[in-house]
Formats: sequence, C-alpha cells, structure tokens
Amino acid sequence: MGGGANYPDPSIMIAKEHILCLLPVPANQEILDRIVKAHPNVDFTYRQFDFTKRPVVIPDEDELYKKATILVTIGRVPNPEVAGKIKLIHVFSAGVDWLEKTPIWRDTKIPITNSSGIHAPQIAEWVILQILSLTHHQKTMLSWQSQHIWGSGRQLSPIKDSVGKRLGVLGYGAIGRQVAHLASALGMDVIAYTASPRPTPESKKDRGYIVPSTGDPDGTIPSSWFSGTSKSALHTFLSQSLTHLLISVPLTPSTHHMLSTPEFSILSASKPIIINIARGAIIDQPALIEALKSGEVGGAALDVTEPEPLPRESELWEMENVVVSPHVSGNGTAYWERSMDILEKNLTRIEEGGALLNLVDRGKGY
Amino acid sequence: MGGGANYPDPSIMIAKEHILCLLPVPANQEILDRIVKAHPNVDFTYRQFDFTKRPVVIPDEDELYKKATILVTIGRVPNPEVAGKIKLIHVFSAGVDWLEKTPIWRDTKIPITNSSGIHAPQIAEWVILQILSLTHHQKTMLSWQSQHIWGSGRQLSPIKDSVGKRLGVLGYGAIGRQVAHLASALGMDVIAYTASPRPTPESKKDRGYIVPSTGDPDGTIPSSWFSGTSKSALHTFLSQSLTHLLISVPLTPSTHHMLSTPEFSILSASKPIIINIARGAIIDQPALIEALKSGEVGGAALDVTEPEPLPRESELWEMENVVVSPHVSGNGTAYWERSMDILEKNLTRIEEGGALLNLVDRGKGY
Repeated sequence: MGGGANYPDPSIMIAKEHILCLLPVPANQEILDRIVKAHPNVDFTYRQFDFTKRPVVIPDEDELYKKATILVTIGRVPNPEVAGKIKLIHVFSAGVDWLEKTPIWRDTKIPITNSSGIHAPQIAEWVILQILSLTHHQKTMLSWQSQHIWGSGRQLSPIKDSVGKRLGVLGYGAIGRQVAHLASALGMDVIAYTASPRPTPESKKDRGYIVPSTGDPDGTIPSSWFSGTSKSALHTFLSQSLTHLLISVPLTPSTHHMLSTPEFSILSASKPIIINIARGAIIDQPALIEALKSGEVGGAALDVTEPEPLPRESELWEMENVVVSPHVSGNGTAYWERSMDILEKNLTRIEEGGALLNLVDRGKGY
Repeated sequence: MGGGANYPDPSIMIAKEHILCLLPVPANQEILDRIVKAHPNVDFTYRQFDFTKRPVVIPDEDELYKKATILVTIGRVPNPEVAGKIKLIHVFSAGVDWLEKTPIWRDTKIPITNSSGIHAPQIAEWVILQILSLTHHQKTMLSWQSQHIWGSGRQLSPIKDSVGKRLGVLGYGAIGRQVAHLASALGMDVIAYTASPRPTPESKKDRGYIVPSTGDPDGTIPSSWFSGTSKSALHTFLSQSLTHLLISVPLTPSTHHMLSTPEFSILSASKPIIINIARGAIIDQPALIEALKSGEVGGAALDVTEPEPLPRESELWEMENVVVSPHVSGNGTAYWERSMDILEKNLTRIEEGGALLNLVDRGKGY
C-alpha cells in the first residue's frame, strides 16, 4: 500500500461515477449527501447486507456490479466478467488477505484501496489504557470499588508515572505512530523499528490515510529509528533499555514467533511491559509465560493471543501483571466515516489526476 | 504562587548556604551530590523523620533550624525565634494549608516556595486512564479476564474513540494543562476555564514549575478560553457541548459545591463524563448521583468524594458508568526528584538574582 502510484488514466474518470456500496453496516446519509455535493459527478447505490446469515444473499448482485464504476465493499467482490466498468475498488478493511484468492485480485489490475489508518486512534487508546491500567493498578482500584472499599495508596505498589520511560514501537505504521504520539505526550521517549530503513526525512513520512490531528505524519517523534529483518537487528533494538514494547507489525512468515526465549532474555535487562495489538502468533506465547513468571518481562497487555479464544486454562488469565482482552482493541464506531473519507479523498485525486491514497500493492499483499 | 516577585536581597545569598532537609522520605544521595556539584556554595543536612509516629520527634530540631539558611520540609517548620538565618523555605507539598496557622507564615516574610506542578503528569495519567477505562469498558474486560471468559466486542456498548470529542478543563493549572496535552494528542478539542481572564499570550503562560516535556507551557492548546467568577460565566462554559469535564480547581469558599443541580441540568445537553481529581466538596454529590441516575451526566471518575472515605452505602460504588478510587491519583514516586529540581532552579535564581519559581503568595494562600 502507498500513495506513490498514479491512477492509470485519470482522463476517463471525469465522467459520471456510479458508486456501489456493499456493506454490512447502515449508511450515514448525511455523509453520502456531503460527498455528492462536493463531487456532483457521483451517485451512490447503497446495499446493506447481513453478513451473519450464510450464505450471504444480495439481490441482483451481478447486475449491480455491471452498472458500477466504483465499488465500496467488504467481504464481497465481483467476478471479473461482471466488473467491466469498475475502475476502483475501495475496501472497508485494513487487511486485504480476504481478497487475495479472488479472481479480481489475481486476474485484473483494477486499483484497490484499503482502509488502513482508520483504526489507529481507537487501537492506540486501548494501548495507552492498558499501559496506564497496569502502572496505576486499575485492577486493584476496580476491585476495591466493587467491594465498596476505600483502599489506601500504601496498599498499592509504588507508581512511577511515564515521564522519562522509553517505548519501543516494533512496526511504525498508523497504529504505532498514534501510540508514539500519545506516549510522547506522556513524557516518554519513543524509539521505532521498521523492516526497511528510513534514513531520510522523506522516508520517515506516513504515506497512508491519517485521521486528522493524530499520528506522527512526518515520523519526527522517535528519538532513534532502528531497522532490518535480521535477528541481530531486532536484538539491537530490543536492548535499548525499553520500559514498554509495542508490537504493531503484521503477521507474516518472518514475524511469526518473532519474540521468543532469546528475545525475552535480551529484554530482561529492562523488564518492559509488552503490548500486543497485532496478532497472537507474533509472540511465542509459552515463552512469554515463562518470561512473565521469571520476571524477565515486567507485564503484558494482550488483545490477541494464540490461539483465540485463549483457552480457559491458560495461565495468562490469572497473572496480576497481565491484561487479556478478547481481540476488541479495534472495536469502534468511527470507521464508516473515516473509510468514506478515504474514498472522498480518492474521488478528488481521480478528478485531479493525483496518486491514490491507500493504494494496495498486489505484489506485497498490503 | 507565581514567579513574579524578586528575591528580597540577592547579594546576601552568594554566601555559603546550609540547606536543612526535614523530610519523611529517604534522600537520593546522587541527586544531592549533583546539586552540590552545580552549586559549590551549598551543603546539605538531611534528616528523615517518621511521620507515622506521633508526636514526631526530630533530635536537635531547634539546633538544626538555627544553623540552616534554607529549609526544605513538609509538615515541620520552626518558630521564628530559631529561624533567624533562614532565607527560604521550600515545601515538598503543592498545598500550603498546613502552614497557614504557623507563626512562620503569619509573623515572618521568609519566602516560601511550594512544589506545585510536580504531581501533574501522575494525576493527568489517572485522568486519561479513567476516561479511557469508561469509554473502552475496562470494567467489563477485566471482569471477563477474572472469569477466564473470551468475550465478544458485540457484548460491549459501542465504543467511539476520542477524536473530535471536547474536554472542558475547569481550572487550567499544571494538572489541567497536562490533561489538555494528552487529550489533544487523543484528538480531542480542549477548552479552558479560569477565574481570571487570560486575554494575552503572556497571560496564558504557565508560570509555575513544569515537568519537562509535559503540560501546556504557553497555554496554546485550548481552542477557546472562558473565565469569570460568576454563575453565568460558569454556565456559559458548561454549555459548550462538552463530552468530558475535568474539575481541577482548588477548593475554596467560591468553588464549594460549584457543580450542583443547575449545572448538571445545563450539562445534560451534552451528557459529559465528569472527572474530579480536586476535592470532593467542589461537587454537590447527592445532586451528581441524581444526574447520573437521570442520565443528565454520562459518567463520572472520582478520585475524591465527600466525605472521604466514601461511605460503604453510597450508590456511587455500584454505578456501571462511575469509577471511584480512594484519593490515590497523586500517589507517585517521582516527586522527590522533581521537588529538588524546583529547589535547584531556585538556587540558581538566588545566585543570579532572579525571581523565585513557585513562590507562595501569603495573601492568596497559594
């Protein structure tokens, strides 16, 4: 994904655009009206489907595809033979793994844009909530409340606020950048890790969709930036006296069990709290449990586990310095509007001949 | 309190300074050594006393006072007759109410500096923790965890992240400013309320001690700034479509029960979450309980109540959209160092003849 590629032939896009929305959520008519007002060449056909019913049935689905020039969707795509007029597919998800086995992905070059970036504020809030919840002993405070107990600060372990602590962000994408923004406001030092190096100011920029007034658009927050795909590069990053480590990389064969016994051993020098909002399998979970028991790791906040659901007998549930939540960190209500914001920005770019925002790179798979 | 007054006679301060510390916590010798290195005219006498034992006994207390030129203390002050050489009293607390009935306050003009500002990051973290805890249903998530339940996002009420929400900060001091800083990083709009108007850039500045890289030193975060001491001025502020209202004013006769039935009625237009880290008596608590029950107020996070401890039969304990904690938001471990940082800045100002930081105004009582 990126903003680098030019739309193949902008001139053909000035014509009337028939935007077909196939989505499992209701429309916000006010926003659709606003888009039409700003782009008078556009009309919308909106079909809400029920994705809890299998098989999904959308009446006249193929006829709808045939008339559309732009498709906004999640979970439903046409076969190429009924997609002759479609010049852009905008998907409401950040990941496009659900598309990768479809003929429209494999056999066409129809540009696909995704919704990467829209979840960043929501998930970053979950991260900061859990960091502060662990530091400030929220479990104990809420337990006192439920028992009507006016506890005493002396019964809590000492609380040290975040000023001067150091967060390592493993994977400096939209989520990592907004966590960095918040951590920096808390007074923390932030360091970043990315697979590819970012030596220039230009390379540090976030080229995807950014929710206004959030994130780190220019990549100026990290006090240092590490990169590489080797174990030794990762180990150098992990040995930077981290008090907190955020895992915000996609799950790929190269990130599978990226954190295991050797990594926890390196981290033991600073005993960080580890926060995972990415995928459970990035962590070797039995190794993490051992590291938590031995004290090599100071705590963990896990919205993702391996497997999910986390088995009832997992030791993670009962650990005082662990927060487990059932993959809900991205559970929010602001996405529809933000994803439509990406679509609208791309309508403007198409009209003006610019590069598409959040264009998916079929080669990279994101 | 402020930085405006010049130290009476800077020339007399170039001499050897004997700093007597009477504190209930141990010294960090490294920091004392660093101060002595930077200020070779200074020596320290450090006495740790046990304030849990009554009466407090500090051996040779009066003899220590007689030799001291600067006193660093909390809870203990000399009578004026043994304080002849003392030119500065630095107190480790933000509030100085414990001093106001002492002869040293009433009968001398010895400059007193306080530690206002050192607690801001800690307390601001508690505020953001509770805001996010309420929005993201942390009570439910932790309850699932304690029962080993992998819940579902569908069981939670919809979560809307903070982007575009609006925080009103009632009392824009050190704590309010750091909460504003964090709220702004979350994407919230912030508006401020102060008793006295702040029409100029100069008047908006924070003149007290600021923990580095926190707060809002220039007062540039609020998108608008309200002020006044009348009910109508307050009501105008409360009618600004707030989603969150932070109470961070000192308790004085004019702020006692500042928020009561008429104010909650005005707030009902936007149903904000109310956060109180100041003093319980600023809120008319029975009126708040009614407003919570009727839905005029969307929720509350209360680290202070009236009275304290909150009685076991209070309805607040059981309200789902209320967090109660036992006056622990300021419970932190970073204060010793920060308070000594204020002292050190003032040693420099004394040597160079500048205005003292965090100088207490005996007339105002803070």
